[in-house]
Amino acid sequence: MPSLKAKPAPFAKATAQLRRQLGARVATSTDALFRASFDGSKLSFLPEAVISPKKNADISAVLALANKYRVPVTVRGGGTSLTGSGSPIRGGWVLDVSKWNKISIDAEAGMAHVQAGANVAAIHAAAEATGWFYPADPASKQYCTIGGNIACNAGGMHGGKYGVTRDFVLALKGFLPTGEYVEWGRATKKFSAGFNLRDLWIGSEGMLGVVTEAVLKLVPLPPARWTLLTAFADEVTAFKAIRALFAQRVQPAICEFLDRHAVQCAEAKTGQTVFQGQAGRPVILIELAGTANELADLKPAVLAWATQYAAAHREAANRAEAEELWTVRRKCSSAMFALGDSKLNEDIVVPLKNYEKFAVFLDKLRKSSRLPIPTFGHLADGNLHVNIMYHRENRAEYLRAEKAVGQLMAGVVKLGGAISGEHGIGLAKTPFLALQHSPAQIKAMRAVKQALDPNGILNPGKMFTLFKVWEHPRLKIELPWDHK
Amino acid sequence: MPSLKAKPAPFAKATAQLRRQLGARVATSTDALFRASFDGSKLSFLPEAVISPKKNADISAVLALANKYRVPVTVRGGGTSLTGSGSPIRGGWVLDVSKWNKISIDAEAGMAHVQAGANVAAIHAAAEATGWFYPADPASKQYCTIGGNIACNAGGMHGGKYGVTRDFVLALKGFLPTGEYVEWGRATKKFSAGFNLRDLWIGSEGMLGVVTEAVLKLVPLPPARWTLLTAFADEVTAFKAIRALFAQRVQPAICEFLDRHAVQCAEAKTGQTVFQGQAGRPVILIELAGTANELADLKPAVLAWATQYAAAHREAANRAEAEELWTVRRKCSSAMFALGDSKLNEDIVVPLKNYEKFAVFLDKLRKSSRLPIPTFGHLADGNLHVNIMYHRENRAEYLRAEKAVGQLMAGVVKLGGAISGEHGIGLAKTPFLALQHSPAQIKAMRAVKQALDPNGILNPGKMFTLFKVWEHPRLKIELPWDHK
Repeated sequence: MPSLKAKPAPFAKATAQLRRQLGARVATSTDALFRASFDGSKLSFLPEAVISPKKNADISAVLALANKYRVPVTVRGGGTSLTGSGSPIRGGWVLDVSKWNKISIDAEAGMAHVQAGANVAAIHAAAEATGWFYPADPASKQYCTIGGNIACNAGGMHGGKYGVTRDFVLALKGFLPTGEYVEWGRATKKFSAGFNLRDLWIGSEGMLGVVTEAVLKLVPLPPARWTLLTAFADEVTAFKAIRALFAQRVQPAICEFLDRHAVQCAEAKTGQTVFQGQAGRPVILIELAGTANELADLKPAVLAWATQYAAAHREAANRAEAEELWTVRRKCSSAMFALGDSKLNEDIVVPLKNYEKFAVFLDKLRKSSRLPIPTFGHLADGNLHVNIMYHRENRAEYLRAEKAVGQLMAGVVKLGGAISGEHGIGLAKTPFLALQHSPAQIKAMRAVKQALDPNGILNPGKMFTLFKVWEHPRLKIELPWDHK
Repeated sequence: MPSLKAKPAPFAKATAQLRRQLGARVATSTDALFRASFDGSKLSFLPEAVISPKKNADISAVLALANKYRVPVTVRGGGTSLTGSGSPIRGGWVLDVSKWNKISIDAEAGMAHVQAGANVAAIHAAAEATGWFYPADPASKQYCTIGGNIACNAGGMHGGKYGVTRDFVLALKGFLPTGEYVEWGRATKKFSAGFNLRDLWIGSEGMLGVVTEAVLKLVPLPPARWTLLTAFADEVTAFKAIRALFAQRVQPAICEFLDRHAVQCAEAKTGQTVFQGQAGRPVILIELAGTANELADLKPAVLAWATQYAAAHREAANRAEAEELWTVRRKCSSAMFALGDSKLNEDIVVPLKNYEKFAVFLDKLRKSSRLPIPTFGHLADGNLHVNIMYHRENRAEYLRAEKAVGQLMAGVVKLGGAISGEHGIGLAKTPFLALQHSPAQIKAMRAVKQALDPNGILNPGKMFTLFKVWEHPRLKIELPWDHK
């Protein structure tokens, strides 16, 4: 733990009252404050108190007090956000709901009733134990919570075929910043009564309300899966190929892409080739899911497609072999740090029709920035993780990285895409919000914020306030999910 | 056309300016005003002008002017709303977007780019012509527009397996009440940049913004369908049975229910039995959709289920026979008018676990109200159409109907359900909004309305203002969809 400078505590009076009201549920130790000061972005800002609520009334009391004294409140689950949306940049209080982790599966209705702190992998496991499937699966699923997934509308590998978090949330329970309890939607698949504040809360990064519970829709667990690894001559060929596959209305459950730079990183680190005989070439991992008969219907078309477009392809004979094909995808992210000590990881989205244009754009960006930009991601929905690697202490590289990320975002928007597909804005993407949204759109969003949180206590400093993430030091710590 | 009383025109000055600006795009003839004065609810309120915009700038000009002079603006598509949400209760201007009906299918990405006035059945047909499927299918699909479907988050028969309108909307384009153009979301399956005003607009009944275009996600058209008609001893048995089917994780594409009262209406009108040998008994129509092999996998389980639970079951040998099984469902709605000249049609939702309790509740309501309440609807998502039939001129029946609808709504909410699954609130459900939503929830909704439409020009008088639909005369006209 780095040494902490003593700072004035502007909310000392409110915090004292909070402690009188909630006693031991309020932590103010140096250690507790430090652990709540950062998220996966490793941007650290100390809060004045960390609250572990035991019951609804605790949360209500915290918010009522915060609203009265205008204390910033940042809600915390797993703390895995990559954008800094979980870092309490304005200090104040962190409301830690990570212990609110109950999961109950309604196996008849195909729904999961979960508390905000429920671990996403645990929700997957609970659903699968009853034959159901919760498809949204961010890479951090072993560590993140459903509350955080709702806050940033998390996606993952299954987004193309199945959808993202938003597509599975039927109902939310929680609190307005005033401390008033609210319920949006019900445990039903249809609900059309009143304005849809459920979906307004989804993706609002904890800035409009506090989620405590959710009802998630599940889908029947596909009984069979089939995995195919394909290698391509280059990125443009790979993208052209995948468009041809989708045009046949084949919807892979998973369709993961690694460009040649990402492949080469993984190969350099592991000393193994990702696809034997196709060293350094971009790969697409395709996984079909369904009943055995459904897969039997689909396989011939997919194999014919691979024969036509891919430089090589290999089926996984069984689950273990499929897992082996996946290993490389997990290694490439950490392997990138051989290319630079700092990374700007941007979860941009590109529309299908512009995939090839994006590949060409990215190659130009690599040349103009003279930086390595390994890229991988979810090809079924165009959500690519573009990683701009640089050395932070190298001033010239730093400036080129800053310029490159701006060009990337502008390029993506110009191609009809999105500056974020699943991470949200937080702090990291604030410089680019105005590329995505017109002044009228941002004005409308801010009006909604002002309407629902007039005192601006919920997660202040995020989304609308300019923050240049590359100008700020990151904690030099290793987080559990760094090498997953 | 009934005779129209001349009324003062409080927005005469604004309307004169509108005509100067937009010329022939502004209609003020008696005929045009009458035709725009009502929707499927047959509640008629005359506007002062009907605008047929030709381009975006027209809509922008209309709204800027309306916002300046505080003129109510009600957006109109097919005019099929059953709640009065399309009736311009405060007069002002009707913005008719029904000519904005372009449809373009992106067969590669599986998306439909549609204008707000596009007919929903035409979207279905355009998608299906390219092998794709747009599942949301309200009963009025031959007449309604996608803009209206977005406004009330319309559902239909496929809601249980596939979802409702909200689940297919990727992006919206349109205008704020100020006349400012906005875009929410992009033509991508992931988007996590900024507050989700796209989904806030969905279901907001034209009260927060004006939709002009949408991008819809499509799913691969299931190549095969299989239909099974089942009859049951009574409603409780039918509901118990369907829960047992769903517990096997069978998700029918369609699962339509008619209770014995609805069946008896249809039988009395047509002189035919719905299910030969099972006259007067409740029926469930089940349709599976998928590949031929997928259906082959599922059929044995469904047939075994029918053998165990149903009094009788019958497979459709082919598409024509399946269509024949469906005919009755289409006839029961109009047949109900043999039971009363007036109908309170409530599209409530009940959670699966409480289906049987609801059947018992409904029988009690029939007894206590001494009114016929035939019920049918979408069993896969619990969205049932409960039809309280009465004679409007019979004061005693009228009062019992008023009481019964209030009891129905309270009962549904008590069972964890919703007062509307697909019609929205409009005028008809305003008396029940406070049953569904707490004061804090309604306050938050009104704050959002105030923030986005501070002058209250968009569809005023809906959702939050009490209106007792049964106290108001309805037009005695026949609409094209009345007998569909």
